[in-house]
Amino acid sequence: MSPLIIDTDPGVDDAFALALACAAPGVDLIGVTTVFGNVGLATTTRNALRVLALCGRDDVPVAAGAERPLVHPHQHRARHVHGTDGLSGRSGTLPERATGVAGVDAVSLLVSLLESAPSPVTVVAIGPLTNIALLLAAHPAVHGKIARLVVMGGALAGGNVTAAAEFNIWSDPEAARRVLVEESVPVTLVPMDLTTRCAVDGPWLDSLAAAGPRGAALVSLTAAYREHYARSLGRDGMVIHDAVAVAEAVKPGLLHTTAMPVDVDCGFGPGRGGVIADRRPARQPDDRREVDVALSADLDQVRAFLLSHLAD
Amino acid sequence: MSPLIIDTDPGVDDAFALALACAAPGVDLIGVTTVFGNVGLATTTRNALRVLALCGRDDVPVAAGAERPLVHPHQHRARHVHGTDGLSGRSGTLPERATGVAGVDAVSLLVSLLESAPSPVTVVAIGPLTNIALLLAAHPAVHGKIARLVVMGGALAGGNVTAAAEFNIWSDPEAARRVLVEESVPVTLVPMDLTTRCAVDGPWLDSLAAAGPRGAALVSLTAAYREHYARSLGRDGMVIHDAVAVAEAVKPGLLHTTAMPVDVDCGFGPGRGGVIADRRPARQPDDRREVDVALSADLDQVRAFLLSHLAD
Amino acid sequence: MSPLIIDTDPGVDDAFALALACAAPGVDLIGVTTVFGNVGLATTTRNALRVLALCGRDDVPVAAGAERPLVHPHQHRARHVHGTDGLSGRSGTLPERATGVAGVDAVSLLVSLLESAPSPVTVVAIGPLTNIALLLAAHPAVHGKIARLVVMGGALAGGNVTAAAEFNIWSDPEAARRVLVEESVPVTLVPMDLTTRCAVDGPWLDSLAAAGPRGAALVSLTAAYREHYARSLGRDGMVIHDAVAVAEAVKPGLLHTTAMPVDVDCGFGPGRGGVIADRRPARQPDDRREVDVALSADLDQVRAFLLSHLAD
Amino acid sequence: MSPLIIDTDPGVDDAFALALACAAPGVDLIGVTTVFGNVGLATTTRNALRVLALCGRDDVPVAAGAERPLVHPHQHRARHVHGTDGLSGRSGTLPERATGVAGVDAVSLLVSLLESAPSPVTVVAIGPLTNIALLLAAHPAVHGKIARLVVMGGALAGGNVTAAAEFNIWSDPEAARRVLVEESVPVTLVPMDLTTRCAVDGPWLDSLAAAGPRGAALVSLTAAYREHYARSLGRDGMVIHDAVAVAEAVKPGLLHTTAMPVDVDCGFGPGRGGVIADRRPARQPDDRREVDVALSADLDQVRAFLLSHLAD
Repeated sequence: MSPLIIDTDPGVDDAFALALACAAPGVDLIGVTTVFGNVGLATTTRNALRVLALCGRDDVPVAAGAERPLVHPHQHRARHVHGTDGLSGRSGTLPERATGVAGVDAVSLLVSLLESAPSPVTVVAIGPLTNIALLLAAHPAVHGKIARLVVMGGALAGGNVTAAAEFNIWSDPEAARRVLVEESVPVTLVPMDLTTRCAVDGPWLDSLAAAGPRGAALVSLTAAYREHYARSLGRDGMVIHDAVAVAEAVKPGLLHTTAMPVDVDCGFGPGRGGVIADRRPARQPDDRREVDVALSADLDQVRAFLLSHLAD
Repeated sequence: MSPLIIDTDPGVDDAFALALACAAPGVDLIGVTTVFGNVGLATTTRNALRVLALCGRDDVPVAAGAERPLVHPHQHRARHVHGTDGLSGRSGTLPERATGVAGVDAVSLLVSLLESAPSPVTVVAIGPLTNIALLLAAHPAVHGKIARLVVMGGALAGGNVTAAAEFNIWSDPEAARRVLVEESVPVTLVPMDLTTRCAVDGPWLDSLAAAGPRGAALVSLTAAYREHYARSLGRDGMVIHDAVAVAEAVKPGLLHTTAMPVDVDCGFGPGRGGVIADRRPARQPDDRREVDVALSADLDQVRAFLLSHLAD
Repeated sequence: MSPLIIDTDPGVDDAFALALACAAPGVDLIGVTTVFGNVGLATTTRNALRVLALCGRDDVPVAAGAERPLVHPHQHRARHVHGTDGLSGRSGTLPERATGVAGVDAVSLLVSLLESAPSPVTVVAIGPLTNIALLLAAHPAVHGKIARLVVMGGALAGGNVTAAAEFNIWSDPEAARRVLVEESVPVTLVPMDLTTRCAVDGPWLDSLAAAGPRGAALVSLTAAYREHYARSLGRDGMVIHDAVAVAEAVKPGLLHTTAMPVDVDCGFGPGRGGVIADRRPARQPDDRREVDVALSADLDQVRAFLLSHLAD
Repeated sequence: MSPLIIDTDPGVDDAFALALACAAPGVDLIGVTTVFGNVGLATTTRNALRVLALCGRDDVPVAAGAERPLVHPHQHRARHVHGTDGLSGRSGTLPERATGVAGVDAVSLLVSLLESAPSPVTVVAIGPLTNIALLLAAHPAVHGKIARLVVMGGALAGGNVTAAAEFNIWSDPEAARRVLVEESVPVTLVPMDLTTRCAVDGPWLDSLAAAGPRGAALVSLTAAYREHYARSLGRDGMVIHDAVAVAEAVKPGLLHTTAMPVDVDCGFGPGRGGVIADRRPARQPDDRREVDVALSADLDQVRAFLLSHLAD
């Protein structure tokens, strides 16, 4: 069983991602940490607990992390996508978890989980990268215990929250730069360019809803979110960004990646929070770090993988 | 005959663009202004004169403009593409023009050409936008005399001079922002995404070289440039960015455009000089100005158009 | 008679500055250009005409220039200082000038005045530096006709419009950088550090009001402005920034200057528009341009000079 | 006994500061953490251990922290001031400490020291603020255990490492912004404006050298540093920035402070790393956090205080 940790800000697609991490075979979800993002920290933490309760995972330790970005204030802009409670106004329909949050902050929980893990851990970060940046910068000794960091974030050809930037990276560009550019932990970056192409449609959602009570509960959380994406996609459906990243984490190689140097725009202009990937065919070789960027996949295989395990 | 002005920094592809403007039917090239860019101003000015001489156009007034960007210093980075003389080391093989530069600066020439033009003028800017920004900002009364401004510049999915930016916009981001965002003159932006797809290949160049002495002279200027692009494209060929923009100017509609708001990154980080186009399908309507961005074309038609008139 | 041009955005202290330029012996005010700033361009232009009318100078050519900054939009923040009409709501009490604006833009008027001046001209810029930047960048041949550029602007130890920046420079940092850092025209910079120390008090204003109808009219324009400064200074009085700069222009050496390199913050953070003067005693020598920054003066002499000529 | 922690990057003046913290009456130095800065982390850590050995403090736990800034790379620029070993090339003359570094990172040591302290702790940060930012952001529960944070850093009227910025803040502006602007721990900021005015002279150094072996050892570390400051000050002497901050920490009220909002320039222009203090007398009240900035002191009293305890 591969140990897995999820850092998350639920959020509708985070809920699907958490459920996938609970259901996927061969992986052991050893901890969940929360971060501000789609909604405030108190709400993302409560949502994480409830989704774990839905999945029957009262045993997984949960700790609350950063309530704001590393350096500059956050401007909340995601509420119209996920609803003010982060789950399309339906969070109250989920069960409460018997076990509350751990008595330590998220970074401390991450340190102790990593230190005590029997083998290197896959960490999947599906919210702003604040907790991960703090972990790696404050406690460098844990680097060796991270097998791979899978990050949902970034946009190579136009963002969602601004013309240039995807929400997770835009929410804390300085943390993202620390993690993606300055650290050496192996990173797989799953940008919205690919997650958007993995959008699921009405029949997919209907199949999930019909599969059982957990699937039905997950689909019931999507009302507002699905409406937002119907407008954006121009058809019924929705993008479950974070679940695609978790899918790659639990089934390495599901997505096809290309190694390239990236940078993050930490300025205060219209490009703030943009991920700048260097794809120039004839660029001079240099010593910049490369990350593996997921640019393509067998899209139907991804959707089938997601459905089969979420419907489990 | 439609009046046409070209603002340019020759450069190999600028030479092709100038030659096309001289040869295209139905247009009247009424002036050429020069700007720093691919090489320094003295060299771009000399090159412009020589290419006009090659085309038998001693009559077209030429004036030298900006020798540096609007606000910040320029870092020259194009010499390895165009050669130190801007024309693959072959500028000496071109004839000298009998008529030298006009006795006025470029902005003054632009003002007097526009004021005296019988009908609104198409201006094609195929270098850094410094002269154009100065013209529009210092002498706003000329706005009404510009029918359309066709700009070669920008990159929507990865640049050439940096990971984010295309050379012309990167060379003077502040001037580009003034022109593309703050002014109201109708703009058609021809980004390198499309010009690159219009790359010509060896047989195309052979046909041009065989067509006559002018075509042969043009092709003789491409040695170093073609070698650079062979590496970048991974095959024999080259990209004549600027000629594609002039093609659209002399045959409106040759390229297919989409209206969208754009911004220019004027910060000092890795995104400097990037063009940020807002292509979000579900973005809120707002009052930002839109420019027409050329995103697609019948590529074979473009190449055939270029060849037929350059070989003329 | 030394030829003098004033570029201005009246504004209460600009009105005093214009009146001084009209009254000072040995100088010939050959032109006035206007710029957006304390209020919008239409209002600053109307105010300039009226103040010249008050001073009996219907002969001085006036042209309207930039209505916005070089690159980025302006956020108007000075109306609470100067009143919505720029003159404490009292502009209607001034006479209308018989002669309106020239039929050309400000940059064109500047070019023709400089070209035809019998000797090099002192230019005093007491608003945002947009017109001056455009002039120098678009028409470099006039550089040789400018004897000295005296600029009111900047703050070395804390600004007024923001914690870092003085209003004129903040209003167009990119234009200021072009003029102060990238050009080679001799510049004397008169920052608000010194102009604030030259503040005049109630008795000074009473003396001016008592000196005659023009003095009385000027003092009548100060109501709202004086109230603002009473709060800021903590005592009755006001700062006539722009008049101090004109005083130096008409009596060179009245202020004591130190040569030093300066830069202008063109970023988008809290320092935007700040002037960064390099005063390090042990800095390495380098080839950066230096400007003469006015840091001290015999303050009583300055106030007496101002009163004697304004009361003239 | 008041508990005290020092976060430091020795550095000559850091050595004086550490010695003062060991010698000052009424305070209990409970820990020292190190950070990159004047020289690299390995060297600052070794230097901290040696200075503590010189002071007979083998008991104080020492842990190594950040080896680089929070977000962007560091450009080392202080070696010419402190020597390549950080102590004027004289570090080898200091004794080695019997006790090495703690087996944990600096942030972990800070957490455990603060958690176990019997009363709130004064933390003095005299290097880049990276460790402190990480501590406060990753482990917010410790806030309540910090009585006061005294920071040596910033420049209100011109920096040292650049025209705008003081070395400590410039070395990690993002960390400084987190600590000075985004956190709520009570901060006393001791900028170089005041520390420079507290410069000590030749006779002061002679007195210290004559006071005993520890004083002589400290003075022997100053050779290169003193030479640098002799050039900068224009007279024999040196500025012991960090010791002035520790003096305030061990004798609260020694320096006179004024509460004001500050910000830190995190852009990439010439103002990077500058501290922007809002000293406008008439600024609108707002809800920005204020820090206590030390702007004045009885300078002779400060020097006498430093000498009496260092010579102890």
